[in-house]
Amino acid sequence: MYIPKHFEVTDKKEALAFISANGFGQLISTVESRLFVSHLPFLVSEDRKSIICHLAKNNPQWNSIEEQEVLVTFQGPHDYISPSWYSSPGVPTWNYQSVHIYGKPVLVTEPKKLCSIVGELTKKYESSFEKPWNPENKESLLNMIIGIEISIADIQCKYKLSQNRPESDQKQVAEQLKQKGSVQLSKAMKIEL
Amino acid sequence: MYIPKHFEVTDKKEALAFISANGFGQLISTVESRLFVSHLPFLVSEDRKSIICHLAKNNPQWNSIEEQEVLVTFQGPHDYISPSWYSSPGVPTWNYQSVHIYGKPVLVTEPKKLCSIVGELTKKYESSFEKPWNPENKESLLNMIIGIEISIADIQCKYKLSQNRPESDQKQVAEQLKQKGSVQLSKAMKIEL
Repeated sequence: MYIPKHFEVTDKKEALAFISANGFGQLISTVESRLFVSHLPFLVSEDRKSIICHLAKNNPQWNSIEEQEVLVTFQGPHDYISPSWYSSPGVPTWNYQSVHIYGKPVLVTEPKKLCSIVGELTKKYESSFEKPWNPENKESLLNMIIGIEISIADIQCKYKLSQNRPESDQKQVAEQLKQKGSVQLSKAMKIEL
Repeated sequence: MYIPKHFEVTDKKEALAFISANGFGQLISTVESRLFVSHLPFLVSEDRKSIICHLAKNNPQWNSIEEQEVLVTFQGPHDYISPSWYSSPGVPTWNYQSVHIYGKPVLVTEPKKLCSIVGELTKKYESSFEKPWNPENKESLLNMIIGIEISIADIQCKYKLSQNRPESDQKQVAEQLKQKGSVQLSKAMKIEL
């Protein structure tokens, strides 16, 4: 991804934390030489060396995926930024945060491992509920999915949050975003309002 | 994209309306044979036959893009869906809406056309403000960007909104999403609550 210096995040820990918080990613590869994307929730592995997902066996994307390097993109909240919020001249832009992961995928078909992926994903998203749902992991259901573990070869992290603007403009951007309801994006700027 | 029948939207008008409402897309192509993604706002052309964006000339993605078929993905609000919301057994899933556009890109460098792209994008996002900002379109700024017009060769639209569940479950999903703050996703289900 094209990352001008002021938008670049080099802290790998921060990038992985972003993925954990914004885990619904886009898995990009090719199927029969054509670009192909699936929208899937991803886990960061315990050793932080890979990201893991699963998809329906009916989805053709897994077929020849082990022969490729794939790209997975993660994105958080985003919004239009008006130059009218700046105190000095500027141009319209869009603010967002994104992490891109490049890596080689390995299919996961072993029932115990597949069961653990489903279990971890469920635990992650059920834990905030009062009565978390517990996976049953029936064999018939596990037979319908296939896991993909992507070992991280390259990680790119871009936080485009008006860091190229003077402090007073950044504060205005954070304030205006908050006012128009883009609360998460405003918070991501980490500016005291 | 893998689209089971119950999640497929075949109405092209609906798909283009979705893009207009969720115009911040991911432009996917290859740069030096490696997958590459830029996050950019897109316009649907007046004749609805193409989508249009612009990027910084410093972004390497435009260099060899005219030789390729690209994929642009658009996504709306999304969230985890708990099987505990269903009245009959189910598995955890993720609900989302997405439109994928495949097409051949043509670069736009002609200043007048570039000026009109920037103007249209600005108008679109400024029009909701009390005092819309007007573009100045200085030549020096237009020289720093390049336009890309992608003629739509293929359009895929997937609304994954629990349509495969009984009506009572769909109502519960819409209700629970609303309660946990996923208001836009809940509204997208078009279920009276």
